[in-house]
Amino acid sequence: MRLSPLLTDLYELTMLAGYCREGMEAKPAAFDLYFRTNPFEGGYAVFAGLEPALDALAELRFAEDELAYLAGIGLFDEPFIAFLRDFRFRGTVVAPPEGTLVFANEPLLTVTGTLAETQLVETLLLNTLNFQTLVATKAARICHAAAGAEVIEFGLRRAQGPDGGVSAARAACVGGATGTSNVLAGMRFDLPVRGTHAHSWVQAFPDELTAFQAYADAFPDSTVLLVDTYDTLKSGVVNAIIVALRLRQRGHELRGIRLDSGDLAYLSREARRMLDEAGFPEVRILASNELDEQVIDSIRDEGGRVDIYG
Amino acid sequence: MRLSPLLTDLYELTMLAGYCREGMEAKPAAFDLYFRTNPFEGGYAVFAGLEPALDALAELRFAEDELAYLAGIGLFDEPFIAFLRDFRFRGTVVAPPEGTLVFANEPLLTVTGTLAETQLVETLLLNTLNFQTLVATKAARICHAAAGAEVIEFGLRRAQGPDGGVSAARAACVGGATGTSNVLAGMRFDLPVRGTHAHSWVQAFPDELTAFQAYADAFPDSTVLLVDTYDTLKSGVVNAIIVALRLRQRGHELRGIRLDSGDLAYLSREARRMLDEAGFPEVRILASNELDEQVIDSIRDEGGRVDIYG
Repeated sequence: MRLSPLLTDLYELTMLAGYCREGMEAKPAAFDLYFRTNPFEGGYAVFAGLEPALDALAELRFAEDELAYLAGIGLFDEPFIAFLRDFRFRGTVVAPPEGTLVFANEPLLTVTGTLAETQLVETLLLNTLNFQTLVATKAARICHAAAGAEVIEFGLRRAQGPDGGVSAARAACVGGATGTSNVLAGMRFDLPVRGTHAHSWVQAFPDELTAFQAYADAFPDSTVLLVDTYDTLKSGVVNAIIVALRLRQRGHELRGIRLDSGDLAYLSREARRMLDEAGFPEVRILASNELDEQVIDSIRDEGGRVDIYG
Repeated sequence: MRLSPLLTDLYELTMLAGYCREGMEAKPAAFDLYFRTNPFEGGYAVFAGLEPALDALAELRFAEDELAYLAGIGLFDEPFIAFLRDFRFRGTVVAPPEGTLVFANEPLLTVTGTLAETQLVETLLLNTLNFQTLVATKAARICHAAAGAEVIEFGLRRAQGPDGGVSAARAACVGGATGTSNVLAGMRFDLPVRGTHAHSWVQAFPDELTAFQAYADAFPDSTVLLVDTYDTLKSGVVNAIIVALRLRQRGHELRGIRLDSGDLAYLSREARRMLDEAGFPEVRILASNELDEQVIDSIRDEGGRVDIYG
């Protein structure tokens, strides 16, 4: 995907103009990219973001409207604008494969080339690799805590804008997540997309059972019911079991239920017991609501029966 | 700018398909967008992101490749794909102007329209407004702490991908920042762009004075020198004063110096004294390095003489 070469801090361009003026732009140079502290007080990071970074480097060129903008801000002369017009990245990048465990204060990625090439791409590389590595690391920690249960990425609505959400979905899957709610990320990176319904679906119907039944009618083979809109154990799980029985009568099986509030360890244990007693040991329990590795650890410590964390 | 309507959580689409199946898609509906807690343990938030959100709603439509992707994931039938092909957002949005102070648990924005319209746009609105409001709020808090000193946004290299950086620059300026280092944001939103050179510029020359002089030669009317590469007070500020004298002899004035490490309060006081004594009371002092409102407060409490925070 094309990234604008203007996606950079201004000083990369002013320094580059200065190097050109001094005749230093073609000097050989090398930059090491590294970080100083392992994130999340952890012992490692999971390297991610390399493929989009390399794609961006391969396609890096200034468009005419971008050159016109730069010419208009009053810092750069015509020879420098002409230099940028012809600019291509022809340097070399050495890095481990994505998903590799990496550590603080070791070179994560080394860029060699001319001083111009290595200088101009600094911000782009930091922007891409810092964030995706952070997300992949967090995802790996969460997957480790989940101890074999599935983990699905649901971060889009709190991400930093469209691309923040799309690249986070990609990086989370590098770190071990098995799917994402983000449809655009699913399309762009061929990731499994996941999701069913919200509380607003239940509220749009006269009652919970009608809402559940309507959803099951629409998606008989992929129904996951959100059971905490009114009363999780007294209403939600009971109604889910009724719908599961009706689905089975028609040759389908309920896929799962989702818990999105309350004491997830307790509710998942009780829901598991109710589902098992009703003859639905295969119905999976999905838990969501601000989960991280510490919360997942505590759910497991308390005997929680969660199959999928979202 | 076009945002893909696939930039949504899958469940918005599955619910929409369900509503269509039940004949409920044209029912009138209203959604209030609100947040539960003022961020940063503060008393308010600064509303931002409305214009990009409205632009996205106005241009919301599914492209053929996007419809083909949705048809291929096995959840949606042809009538629903046809419904999406014709989908346009014709609802109504009521919101305060950007930059308005807003508070937890009040409706920030109300969307009215059909159930289909109001459902489909939820993730897009949350993604755009959550993040930009958060950044504008942080920027306003920092500007308040800066007590009249300028604040410039430098966040691109740590942002969540390209758009995270671009929209953060916009939101920071809604919150009071007077410029950004992000060139693409500058072009797209007509914001002042700021920046000079990095430590690597100094390291690329045989010595600091040569590096400073080369930069001043290239940008005689907009030179800000980063003075902490080797020894801030014994080398950096001294060399900056030498370059300031040379610039003045040629009819130019040094714009500023930048401190990026160490005790910023102490270093700014000493640098101010040295610059004043050398006859440069107009040279401005810019401080950077992981600043937030608490750090800025403490710099001011300790008598720091910072004119611009970055």
